[in-house]
Amino acid sequence: MNQTIELLKKHRSIRKFKETAIPEEHLTEIILAAQAASTSSNIQAYSVIAVKDPERKRRFAGLAGNQQQIVESPVFLVWCADLNKIRTAIRLHEDVELKQNVELFLLGTIDATLAAQNATVAAESLGYGMVYIGGIRNNPQDVTDLLELPQLVYPVFGMCLGVPDQEPDIRPRLPLAAVYHQEVYSKEGLEDEIKAYDEITRHYYATRKGGGRGGEQETKWSKEMLRRFNGERLRGHMHDFLLGRGFELK
Amino acid sequence: MNQTIELLKKHRSIRKFKETAIPEEHLTEIILAAQAASTSSNIQAYSVIAVKDPERKRRFAGLAGNQQQIVESPVFLVWCADLNKIRTAIRLHEDVELKQNVELFLLGTIDATLAAQNATVAAESLGYGMVYIGGIRNNPQDVTDLLELPQLVYPVFGMCLGVPDQEPDIRPRLPLAAVYHQEVYSKEGLEDEIKAYDEITRHYYATRKGGGRGGEQETKWSKEMLRRFNGERLRGHMHDFLLGRGFELK
Repeated sequence: MNQTIELLKKHRSIRKFKETAIPEEHLTEIILAAQAASTSSNIQAYSVIAVKDPERKRRFAGLAGNQQQIVESPVFLVWCADLNKIRTAIRLHEDVELKQNVELFLLGTIDATLAAQNATVAAESLGYGMVYIGGIRNNPQDVTDLLELPQLVYPVFGMCLGVPDQEPDIRPRLPLAAVYHQEVYSKEGLEDEIKAYDEITRHYYATRKGGGRGGEQETKWSKEMLRRFNGERLRGHMHDFLLGRGFELK
Repeated sequence: MNQTIELLKKHRSIRKFKETAIPEEHLTEIILAAQAASTSSNIQAYSVIAVKDPERKRRFAGLAGNQQQIVESPVFLVWCADLNKIRTAIRLHEDVELKQNVELFLLGTIDATLAAQNATVAAESLGYGMVYIGGIRNNPQDVTDLLELPQLVYPVFGMCLGVPDQEPDIRPRLPLAAVYHQEVYSKEGLEDEIKAYDEITRHYYATRKGGGRGGEQETKWSKEMLRRFNGERLRGHMHDFLLGRGFELK
């Protein structure tokens, strides 16, 4: 279709990196591209922290559930929702506090995510590979301490960046019809689309080359969802953690 | 730097569109590019609904606070966090419910946002313009009803898409140092960076050509933040709305 769409469509997560460093001018380009993303009413409610120190990367890897790719990637970016900036701006003028609620939490989370995805596209256009690390939410308070985040800032996810040292296959996605609806949400056909996708993922895991996170994995998508979401409540600490950082979810 | 990064860096929201329709094959390419974005552990917890019907677009425009660009854009996409798909997948195997909490709410919100930003980049690479419409969260229940969303699906934001009929200036962002930190979050200098940015935005609003949402606007960023966040609690209905849709924020 065009070069940019081809780039987007060949995305796959990279979990093995060469030792090659990323020049600071490339990192700057990547962050400037991130800043160019839309932001809710220009509030720019996010920050990003680059971690390059090997010992610190080791600590983040441990906190994220022993994700070795954090150690191997030359740069580990942590994307944060950041309402501290808005609080600081307001308090230049008046001695007031931001009125928190779930909408403000959403604004920061969405802004951080829009910016991060632009960074991903920019990095991949320069030949780098990446993987998002939601695992930093396993131990969000320790991550917060290591990054010295002020109140009203929380780490949404990490991002390993570097020159790829693997060429994994592209993982197939759900059929278009399971994602893309016309005028109203179509409830018809979803079960069949999931069953069709189950066969596609079964074939993919049977034949794929390289990549993947390793560890336990069901090859049918619907069974993998059952395995993931049928156990304990996922990251049940997040609510109290967020309130401790000054966010409100009411 | 390269074509893709140039594209990202020249993004600005488009609020005036030509009547030109978007061919369905372009929309498909845009959604396939969205699907190629990362998704937390491949859960793909989002859906997108295309609204093209003029009368329906008028209703969404009203619900979003009379945003005329929704009527003028040939396609209005609504990006939704969607846990219904995972629930459906699980229930192919066992008669259980997803255990809800704020982490699951986050997963769906992040997945929808990553996909939407890829759609933005793909659309802009094809020459289209866009603007995100957070205003659909002004009346999320009415939007939900119009889209016939099932439980466990909520509309995160809308997106107007079409051929641009304006060429607004690119809005300057906060200085890099206010967003990009090394190893730890730097608390030094933020006030000065905000004051420097206040002068930049003041100059921008004094000289800009085209674009903008119109209406009241402070020209210094920090004052605009004060105006926006010093009043009523923003969208205070979101908590109860989300719980009504089956999400939990605990």
